[in-house]
Amino acid sequence: MSLLVVGSVAFDALETPHGKVDRTLGGAASYFALAASHFTPVRVVAVVGDDFTDEYRAIFKGRPIDLSGLERAAGKSFFWSGRYNANMSERTTLVTELNVFANFKPILPPDYLNSSSIFLANIDPSLQLSVLKQVRRKPKIVGLDTMNYWIERAPKELRETLKHTDILMINDEETRQLTGEHNLLRAAQRVFKMGPKTLVIKKGEHGALMIHDKFLFSVPAFPLEEVFDPTGAGDSFAGGFMGYLASTGSLSEHNLRRAMVYGSVLGSYAVERFGVERITKLKRKEINSRARHFLNLTSFKLQ
Amino acid sequence: MSLLVVGSVAFDALETPHGKVDRTLGGAASYFALAASHFTPVRVVAVVGDDFTDEYRAIFKGRPIDLSGLERAAGKSFFWSGRYNANMSERTTLVTELNVFANFKPILPPDYLNSSSIFLANIDPSLQLSVLKQVRRKPKIVGLDTMNYWIERAPKELRETLKHTDILMINDEETRQLTGEHNLLRAAQRVFKMGPKTLVIKKGEHGALMIHDKFLFSVPAFPLEEVFDPTGAGDSFAGGFMGYLASTGSLSEHNLRRAMVYGSVLGSYAVERFGVERITKLKRKEINSRARHFLNLTSFKLQ
Repeated sequence: MSLLVVGSVAFDALETPHGKVDRTLGGAASYFALAASHFTPVRVVAVVGDDFTDEYRAIFKGRPIDLSGLERAAGKSFFWSGRYNANMSERTTLVTELNVFANFKPILPPDYLNSSSIFLANIDPSLQLSVLKQVRRKPKIVGLDTMNYWIERAPKELRETLKHTDILMINDEETRQLTGEHNLLRAAQRVFKMGPKTLVIKKGEHGALMIHDKFLFSVPAFPLEEVFDPTGAGDSFAGGFMGYLASTGSLSEHNLRRAMVYGSVLGSYAVERFGVERITKLKRKEINSRARHFLNLTSFKLQ
Repeated sequence: MSLLVVGSVAFDALETPHGKVDRTLGGAASYFALAASHFTPVRVVAVVGDDFTDEYRAIFKGRPIDLSGLERAAGKSFFWSGRYNANMSERTTLVTELNVFANFKPILPPDYLNSSSIFLANIDPSLQLSVLKQVRRKPKIVGLDTMNYWIERAPKELRETLKHTDILMINDEETRQLTGEHNLLRAAQRVFKMGPKTLVIKKGEHGALMIHDKFLFSVPAFPLEEVFDPTGAGDSFAGGFMGYLASTGSLSEHNLRRAMVYGSVLGSYAVERFGVERITKLKRKEINSRARHFLNLTSFKLQ
């Protein structure tokens, strides 16, 4: 099934204990699209500036990623710079320059209007909603990410967008902030009333928890000997998750569980190198191999 | 198989958002023994004061718990008082009175000298070692818990005791402190060199991770709508874990994985009521039912 993502395509400057890069491809939509493209074709809606040269466009080449919805505007691309502490448990944002992203108004090319799976990455909820209004038919699967900034500044717009969302994918603190409820099971009950019937809580190094109105599913983070760069782990998780789901076209319990695993697989690979490097070069057999490792990591028999 | 635990039997005063108790049975050995006794007979080595009346002794009655190693000394029992914050993510120790525990010298009754499984709860490492020196034969399974206090104050004694330990059961921060290594996989390699070939990292609300020199196994915490009192969750986990293992008498991979699950089952029940109340009244069918819930919470099929 056709999977559309709307979000940021950006340049990142990153500093981790393992090194430093001054300018690398970043942005939620980049990580998402590269991760999801291992499972299904992806359509990207985003905006970049004049500085987004062919060199960066080439990173998406050779993968089933449609960039016809990638608008090019006069000015500079979104730029983010951050530094991680020694054990990478915390990060400090050094610079955020919205640049052309400040005036972003997502416009879907005609080819995209039949998209049946949509992921609304973390942007202004009213822009997320505008994407849903453009598609021709009600999509089968709508996933949404957001953050504290929008929960605080645009609560009404976010509530409106959530009404049309199937799967809300946020972290534990955002879940608590959105619902005003500390306990995650009770928080999920409030989320269900807002629209989404599936809540995926991303917990970073502690894995992810899916709360569906019919079942619970927990997946750990993959224990790694070396984390190079945590940037984009959550967006790669979302890409693996939505990419797998869109490839099946169904929200069955089995598929939702597997989506959690494939999301975790992509998230775990993303952090093994700087930026998008690892998930761009990933082979299908590596994805399958790590998925089996997840099975081994979590399997037990009661008898 | 016979399972011996050495540790504290104490009185706790607890304050959580759900209420307050002034004096309830506490101590690592109490939680451990009550939890483990659902799987196997348990022998307790600990010390209490004159204030440990029949009313408290009765809590262990009707369960396969041997209290002949529970020494009664002149004075008061170990007393601990703590208060949890609103969401129970943090606790403040208000009072710690060692009382008779300050002069505790564990002495095993003759009946206990053939114990084949031993759990050394969190006490002075030299006392832990003295227990191992008393048993007649090398035990099949030795589990050990410790804390920052002993890692800092008695590193030599702890290292000596670890040489005779099969399973080290501590939390993530203690793992990092003991090994000087932030990454848990690399930390485990250092633990293996100290003696234990199995490291169980307790992560509270994030579950537990077993790092064995041949495999990894992760189990989530059980999502609960209501946590009444987190006190004793780790000791109940240890009791369920060691109790199950001792009942099988083997450290096979299957058994170790199941032990993680039964530990988590007991830990999750422990927090549903104040103190030891819930794990004392637990039925075997409730244990089996929650173990199946853990299976459901973590199971997926790749095809």
